[in-house]
Amino acid sequence: MEDKLVLLDLWPSAFAMRVRIALAEKGIKYESKEEDLFDKSPLLLEMNPVHKKVPVLIHNGKSICESLIIVEYIDEVWHDKSPLLPSDPYQRSQAKFWADYTDKKISSFRRKLWAGKGEEHEAAKKELIEYLKTMEGELGDKHFFGGERIGFVDVALVPITSWFYTYETLGNFSIEAECPKLIAWSKRCLEKESVAKSLPHPHKIYEAALWFKKKLGIE
Amino acid sequence: MEDKLVLLDLWPSAFAMRVRIALAEKGIKYESKEEDLFDKSPLLLEMNPVHKKVPVLIHNGKSICESLIIVEYIDEVWHDKSPLLPSDPYQRSQAKFWADYTDKKISSFRRKLWAGKGEEHEAAKKELIEYLKTMEGELGDKHFFGGERIGFVDVALVPITSWFYTYETLGNFSIEAECPKLIAWSKRCLEKESVAKSLPHPHKIYEAALWFKKKLGIE
Repeated sequence: MEDKLVLLDLWPSAFAMRVRIALAEKGIKYESKEEDLFDKSPLLLEMNPVHKKVPVLIHNGKSICESLIIVEYIDEVWHDKSPLLPSDPYQRSQAKFWADYTDKKISSFRRKLWAGKGEEHEAAKKELIEYLKTMEGELGDKHFFGGERIGFVDVALVPITSWFYTYETLGNFSIEAECPKLIAWSKRCLEKESVAKSLPHPHKIYEAALWFKKKLGIE
Repeated sequence: MEDKLVLLDLWPSAFAMRVRIALAEKGIKYESKEEDLFDKSPLLLEMNPVHKKVPVLIHNGKSICESLIIVEYIDEVWHDKSPLLPSDPYQRSQAKFWADYTDKKISSFRRKLWAGKGEEHEAAKKELIEYLKTMEGELGDKHFFGGERIGFVDVALVPITSWFYTYETLGNFSIEAECPKLIAWSKRCLEKESVAKSLPHPHKIYEAALWFKKKLGIE
């Protein structure tokens, strides 16, 4: 039986981008179904009744939710091609740690960045830069977080770089000035076809963010 | 070489309890070092510089942080005895999903419960009950979340039941009245020595919670 894969997708979602990169790295064909955040499909509500969020991967009718769990699932099922997690348990635990840290930080500073201007916004910018500097420290002199090739942490982190232009423009600050090594890393990632075709252009994301803010009535 | 295992521990921490259960299930000997939340040890700050939180497992000098990542690590290194995660990738993804959901919910309602009385406290109680009912639905007629034997989700969830007496007493509500099946499940878990010896008595936790609230100046 041929595998049937459907991705409940949302093009500007950094979480959905992770899944798109992982599927592309493995060379897996799938059908992308674009969701509407303001009018979620019955399929999304059925397949992810707990969180009701994208991305959801539906593999032969069975759903897997939460982006990092989906990426791990993809890595386990299609383990021969382009392994994303190391096989050594300690190295695996470290990759999971940095990906989990990325998740926690994204949730935290994103909420504050959306909250608008003022003190909380300034705190969010500071938190984002501190987080990125920590990640620069973890990257060190490696080509990718995964070493010579992209791995789990690269897949977890690189999508958010497509949002940097939006953060910088709305927040009037420069991430590259603060974290040049991380920006250089993101450019190396973008040289890979799996990443390049999974990340929208930063200007397109900025337009979507403006539209989204207007829709939500945020100044 | 014999393995040297040190757990940076905190007895009332539901997250540390997870690690204690996993180690007990596998029959692994380790040294527990009790931390002081208000005076963290240099070892903790060195071994978990990012979060500075317990639990941390130090295995032959190398640290693993974040409770679910530690439990997975233990399960991978000592995979022969008492496997906690299923071997099938889909089943694994589902166990990880429910454990991750538990983590997200614990962080959310715990913050609100600590916040004290009033509307937010009532909202936290409602959120806790809704979460537990969702977990009851997932448990269904199974003996444990792991099926016939305890697994990853049981290890993730059962520690929080030792805090129920505290939540009920401070919040003046009954969890058992709302979620009898989940309470029955927690009693089945407590029949296992690995769980019983890893969870403190609920009254002891209540005393610690009162002390903690006073220390933090929360009414």
